[in-house]
Formats: sequence, structure tokens, C-alpha cells
Amino acid sequence: MLTLYYAKGSSALAPHILLEEVGAEYAVHEVPIAKGANTEPAYLEINPKARVPALMTPNGVITENPAILTYIAATHQQAHVLPDTPFERAEADALCAYLCATAHVAFAHMQRGARWADSAEAHEAMKAKVASNLRDCADVVEHHHLKGPWAMGDRYTFCDAYLFLMPRWMEKAGVDVSDYPKLAAHHDAMLHRPATLAVMAVHGI
Amino acid sequence: MLTLYYAKGSSALAPHILLEEVGAEYAVHEVPIAKGANTEPAYLEINPKARVPALMTPNGVITENPAILTYIAATHQQAHVLPDTPFERAEADALCAYLCATAHVAFAHMQRGARWADSAEAHEAMKAKVASNLRDCADVVEHHHLKGPWAMGDRYTFCDAYLFLMPRWMEKAGVDVSDYPKLAAHHDAMLHRPATLAVMAVHGI
Repeated sequence: MLTLYYAKGSSALAPHILLEEVGAEYAVHEVPIAKGANTEPAYLEINPKARVPALMTPNGVITENPAILTYIAATHQQAHVLPDTPFERAEADALCAYLCATAHVAFAHMQRGARWADSAEAHEAMKAKVASNLRDCADVVEHHHLKGPWAMGDRYTFCDAYLFLMPRWMEKAGVDVSDYPKLAAHHDAMLHRPATLAVMAVHGI
Repeated sequence: MLTLYYAKGSSALAPHILLEEVGAEYAVHEVPIAKGANTEPAYLEINPKARVPALMTPNGVITENPAILTYIAATHQQAHVLPDTPFERAEADALCAYLCATAHVAFAHMQRGARWADSAEAHEAMKAKVASNLRDCADVVEHHHLKGPWAMGDRYTFCDAYLFLMPRWMEKAGVDVSDYPKLAAHHDAMLHRPATLAVMAVHGI
């Protein structure tokens, strides 16, 4: 049995959607970050990094979206959401790493600037650059990480659930996803999958 | 045949060390970032993100350190640097994701603040927080991602080559790695491996 620790509307959406997509047996446990639940001792026992998502497995806890997504994919082989070859797997892993370390980090400078600087002026300077950075990220994804209609081409794989988050970050930063036709079509296709819709309902979005 | 595009002393050290460690047949191609070679058209054809490392494979180019490292491990099974189970693989992937998206990003705010803000004041405010953030990262790695002596315990795996970079980031930010005994011992163990030493010589470090 797996238990996903999540906050509504957070990046935990990605593994939550993938768990639903592969037909996993899983439970969810909400961690209301807005109420500070992520920094309470009970949750720090689960994830000392005080972030969501975290996935409790029979072997222990996994943190970090790319690791959680690939674990779900690898332990539900019948769902066929892992690419077939080492090269294609690396392409999918590269998209996850780019989303995690560049696109999500770019977005985080909008509301989480306190992670990287203490002055209010610095936070404002960071916010001012978020839209431009996310447009650069969208360009990279559109032209180099998204084959279409799914990230890896004709078949849905684990990284599609993560890519679903990017247009949400763009929208919050005032970047129009329709400027990126493949990314917009990917988002629309995701919104037509029952697994996506079921999880969005749980998150209230 | 594989070709690693690298800059001396950059995070390309990690896949470079792993290529050497697994006994790969590979060539290297230096991309002198200090001279702007990463933004020249010839290199943008290889990696439009203008970053190193990039790995040219018989199937195409792979970018992003976590993806490159796991590709090298998966295509050199005889070297036995992949963990054995999905859970252990996820633990190794989680460390790579943390290094990529949190620790390396924390370090990048020291000299690459222009990625996230345009004002000189903001860049100074970012620099002022780098050491503190890297100490937090080192705490997380020391207590939650590093079993010892290697990241995954008794056996060297692909993520050890990446973890080797962290004490280098800490040193540049004025953080004393000896405050973190397991991390210091890991770095020392890495410095005793012939593959590490051979690659450091190529990088002139």
C-alpha cells in the first residue's frame, strides 16, 4: 500500500495523477501547508525537508517528484508508463529534471523568494523576472522536450503527469500558454483524461 | 560511442567521473563557458539550453545531470552502479533530484543571480544567503540522503559521482564540510578512487 502526502494544488498533483493513472492501490494524506502542517513534528518525521509530495511505501518514504514518479512507474509495469529504452527513459528523466530544477525553481521565485534572499527588494526583483523566465522555459519545453501529443510522442509516460503542472505555473505568472501550441495541446489532452479530472476534484481545482 | 560536452570544473564533473568509473568508451569535448562557447550556434545545436553537461549518444543528445548519470549507469550494467530494487533506485534518484533542484540551485545564487533577478541589490541579497542555504542542504544530505560510506550504503552507485560536487559548492561558499562528518568522509573516499583523480586531472583541479 502506498500513501501520498500532498497539499491541495501543490506539485503533489503530478504523482497523485500518476497514481490514479496507473491504477495504483493508494491512500492520500493531506498536509495543509497554508496552516503550517508541513513544519509540524509529525510531518517532519515523514519528510524532514518539510515539502510535499512524499510517498510512503512498504520500504520507506520517497521524496522529490522525479523519484516518486519513476518509482510509481517502475512498480506498476502493467500500466506501461515507463519508456522502453535507456535513451527514451533518459529523455523522460531529462524533462523531469528540467521541470524540477529549472521551471519549478523559476516559478518558485514568485512567491518563495524568501528561500534565496531576505530583503523585500530582492523578492520584488525576483517576482519581476518570473514571467520572462517561464517564457524561456516554455520555449525550451515546446521545442526540445515535448514531442507531442505526449512528451515522449504517441504514448503517455510518467513525465506527462509532471508536465501538466507547467501551464499552471505559467498561468499564475501571467504567461499565456496558448503562445506555445504543443504545450497548450498537451495540457488540453491531460484535461481529457479521467485520472487527471478525478485528482483535480480531490484538490478542489 | 559517447561524447561528453563539458566545461572544466563545472557540474559536468559528475558524469565525467561516472563515465570513467564504469569503464565507458567515450570522448570529451570541452565547451569553455568562460569564453562564451556555450552560447555559440555550434553548441546550441547540441544543447539549446546553453548549459553543460550534454551527452551525445548513438540515439541523440541527453541533457540534465540526473538523466545523463542514470543513462550511463543503465547502459553499463556490468559496472553495477545502479541500485538493485525500485525503492533503492528511487532513493538514489531522490538524492540526484535534491542535488539538482535544491543544493545546486542554492549554490547558483552565489554567482548566477542574474538568472532570477536583474538588480545588483538583489544579487547581493542572494549571495548573502548562499552559505546558510548550503548548510541546510548539507544537514539534509548528512542525515537523510547519505547512508555511508557511499550514498546508498556499502556500494558505490551513480549518485555518488554527483554527490562529490556538493562539498565543492560548500567550499566556494565558505561552508566547512568537516562540520558534516559523513559528507566529509564521502568526499575523502571519492578522492581515493582512480576514476575521480583521472577526471580531476583533465579538469585541472
